[in-house]
Amino acid sequence: MTAAWSPATGSLDIKTLARLYRSGALKPTAVIDALYDRIAARGDDHVWIHLATREALLQQAAALEATGPTDDPLWGIPYSVKDCNDVPGMPTTNALPEMTYVPETTGQAINRLIESGALCLGKVNMDQFGVGLVGVRTPYGACSSVFGEDYISGGSSSGSGVSVAASLVSFSVANDAAGSGRVPAAFNNIVGLKPTPGFISNSSVSGGGSLKSAETMTVFALTTEDAVTVGRRMGGYDASYEFSKPEADTVNLGIGPIPLQFRFGVPACAALRFFGDEEAAKLFAAAVARLEAMGGTKVEVDFTPFEETQKLLYGGPFIAERAISMDNVVAKYRDHIHPVTLSILDTSSDHTAKDVFAAIHKVAALKRDTRASWDEIDVLVVPTTPTIYTKAEILADPIRLNAQLGIYTNFVNLMGMCGMAVPNGFRPDGLPQGITFLAPSWQDSKVASFGAAYHRETGLTLGATGNPQPV
Amino acid sequence: MTAAWSPATGSLDIKTLARLYRSGALKPTAVIDALYDRIAARGDDHVWIHLATREALLQQAAALEATGPTDDPLWGIPYSVKDCNDVPGMPTTNALPEMTYVPETTGQAINRLIESGALCLGKVNMDQFGVGLVGVRTPYGACSSVFGEDYISGGSSSGSGVSVAASLVSFSVANDAAGSGRVPAAFNNIVGLKPTPGFISNSSVSGGGSLKSAETMTVFALTTEDAVTVGRRMGGYDASYEFSKPEADTVNLGIGPIPLQFRFGVPACAALRFFGDEEAAKLFAAAVARLEAMGGTKVEVDFTPFEETQKLLYGGPFIAERAISMDNVVAKYRDHIHPVTLSILDTSSDHTAKDVFAAIHKVAALKRDTRASWDEIDVLVVPTTPTIYTKAEILADPIRLNAQLGIYTNFVNLMGMCGMAVPNGFRPDGLPQGITFLAPSWQDSKVASFGAAYHRETGLTLGATGNPQPV
Repeated sequence: MTAAWSPATGSLDIKTLARLYRSGALKPTAVIDALYDRIAARGDDHVWIHLATREALLQQAAALEATGPTDDPLWGIPYSVKDCNDVPGMPTTNALPEMTYVPETTGQAINRLIESGALCLGKVNMDQFGVGLVGVRTPYGACSSVFGEDYISGGSSSGSGVSVAASLVSFSVANDAAGSGRVPAAFNNIVGLKPTPGFISNSSVSGGGSLKSAETMTVFALTTEDAVTVGRRMGGYDASYEFSKPEADTVNLGIGPIPLQFRFGVPACAALRFFGDEEAAKLFAAAVARLEAMGGTKVEVDFTPFEETQKLLYGGPFIAERAISMDNVVAKYRDHIHPVTLSILDTSSDHTAKDVFAAIHKVAALKRDTRASWDEIDVLVVPTTPTIYTKAEILADPIRLNAQLGIYTNFVNLMGMCGMAVPNGFRPDGLPQGITFLAPSWQDSKVASFGAAYHRETGLTLGATGNPQPV
Repeated sequence: MTAAWSPATGSLDIKTLARLYRSGALKPTAVIDALYDRIAARGDDHVWIHLATREALLQQAAALEATGPTDDPLWGIPYSVKDCNDVPGMPTTNALPEMTYVPETTGQAINRLIESGALCLGKVNMDQFGVGLVGVRTPYGACSSVFGEDYISGGSSSGSGVSVAASLVSFSVANDAAGSGRVPAAFNNIVGLKPTPGFISNSSVSGGGSLKSAETMTVFALTTEDAVTVGRRMGGYDASYEFSKPEADTVNLGIGPIPLQFRFGVPACAALRFFGDEEAAKLFAAAVARLEAMGGTKVEVDFTPFEETQKLLYGGPFIAERAISMDNVVAKYRDHIHPVTLSILDTSSDHTAKDVFAAIHKVAALKRDTRASWDEIDVLVVPTTPTIYTKAEILADPIRLNAQLGIYTNFVNLMGMCGMAVPNGFRPDGLPQGITFLAPSWQDSKVASFGAAYHRETGLTLGATGNPQPV
């Protein structure tokens, strides 16, 4: 350990750790020791559903050290996993403790992390079954935003977002159907990579996921570069998952320079809603100004088709897709399921086969309606969320406020799009806000490049660490 | 008119007509006159639901002649249109006369034919609403195969197939959900181009089609080259149709040389079923031998995933997609709908939303299961149909025999594949058989190239004309 990296505050960004590991200035065991101290210091923050023992991780880290760093960029990098994903030997709960099991195997994406020499500290909290954008629908206690104890962390990947922002791990593996891989990034000043559905196979997700045709595994990290490093490692075609796409092998996810001049779309005025949060509105206006200063020309796009699509995710028959995997679970564990979650899952039987095809036709038509906009712009920029709520507000009005949080996220997977959620700055009250760069399928490198350039331009420090972005 | 082209038997293949038009040896008015004589000579063959008057067509042809041939390959080329497609000013019936209407407009694909200077003689017979592969489910009388009065023409595009094979038009516009653009090709010794769904927009189809997400407009012609010429003209992205695909603009459909050495898949032995038709089995074996002589290596592929998918088209909840457009029609015209068709449409309410998602997951998994086979082969070759039936046989056992006819066609659109159905020769009893080249999405030029090379290799004459393939 050198003076350059402090156990209490040393940055966990992958670039920094990898450099220190390879220079010999830092060892994985020292990082693990520091992280367990940091975790202990936070007390009961509701982040972990299962935390491996310090001894177990020290042993794994020591085993890595015995052979020394490999070429793998994730060698010795600590991470957490949202508890809807399987990690061999660790319990999976989906935030329903009554149905806990310990998987012996997992799928391609997490297997690749294991092969990489990355170090999994444990499984983290989430809205039960991944239903929600709030992080309070869990029997394990509600995580808080790292910037405000009373405020929600965002969800469903609540523990993932907090574990990265609080610098307990370098990255977290999560997943995203409605925005679960983006909302916690906004509420914790970190980055969320939500790839094109089919890029990262969901075969590591418990039961293959509940919105199989549209959800995707995601990555939270401190920087866009880190998220891309992890996404590259996890991505790729996987014949064991039916919605994995062959294109995944040809994407070559990476970050390049953005054009000196570019056109970015934003929702037309009427669609740009913040539900009375003027500070959020100001921050988004500042984002637009920053993008213009970076060489961008703002283009207001008709947001109607995106809005109509987002309403369909929970307001339409797509909820029935979850019923395929969830009906048996609901039948068996009905009394233990979170009441808000149960009320949502119970709507799945209200729909007919005809409703589904009508919705599929409607989404196809709405996607078609967006094509003219895409021809006009390089990338679409939205606030990741319109505002942020306190836990008390969410508990008092759980369905409506959750739906409001998803107006800029719910449509993305149904339309097959990719996104990169990045930090955008802080309100006067110290709460963070985020923006998301969006593009059609397989333009993952483009949104990553814009996200990286933008985040660098903000000059923001990483998560809640105070550490600067690495050069 | 020269001695080179006889009004009674002169070939209508596009290459021949285009050459004669441009040399000045033949004029569209002469062709139109000849065709109305040919149509009259056939008597009541149940081909036409609406036939424009000779006078109207002569007037259109004369108008073309007044300015002379353009560069358009379809200038002055006569064609027919399956009666589920809209042609401005001609009645559309969908083979249900009670719901006849006369559209004032149509969509991109047929508009492009109109702009090309091609000449539409009229609207042709079909299984009602396009439901069926037989051609007998229509109040307009059942078309016969041009090679056997007692035998079915195939369907649902019955009039399309016969109008081309009998040399009443050069090509016919049809459509295909389960095999309607391929089966009549097999039963009439002609070619059927069934492109990747999304290549030719369905905006010309009455009501946009009933299996919107998976059906496609198709082309019947005397040669593969002709079918490709028409398909190129009709294809392309169309923002007015929600399932039109942007890739349509980048396909560049065409025919090229096939590799000197290639690998072609055929269904593994157990899946190669002919329902007791030994002559069909022999003809398919001859096709395999011919392909081997052309440089091909036969690869038996596991046909299980294709078979499982084909069973889902009518045995699963996909029938509910038709209900979106058909429920109102059924309610209004119940007493007039063909009883077999009605019994099929009435099954659409048996399915739940969950059933649809389960089926979508299953098709995705089955498609995934075929990928290893595609890695092994350049193209898949199947009999277009396992056998052929008489009208009497179909009338006696309408559902089961129809289902048997579709075992090599039903799965293709659900899996997003493209196909080219081509003639394969004749049984000792004079009935024709066909084979179809199949490939995954957007490999349309590949199946066209294989189809063209194979058809040339057979040396077969065109349709029922006795005319040789043009050089």
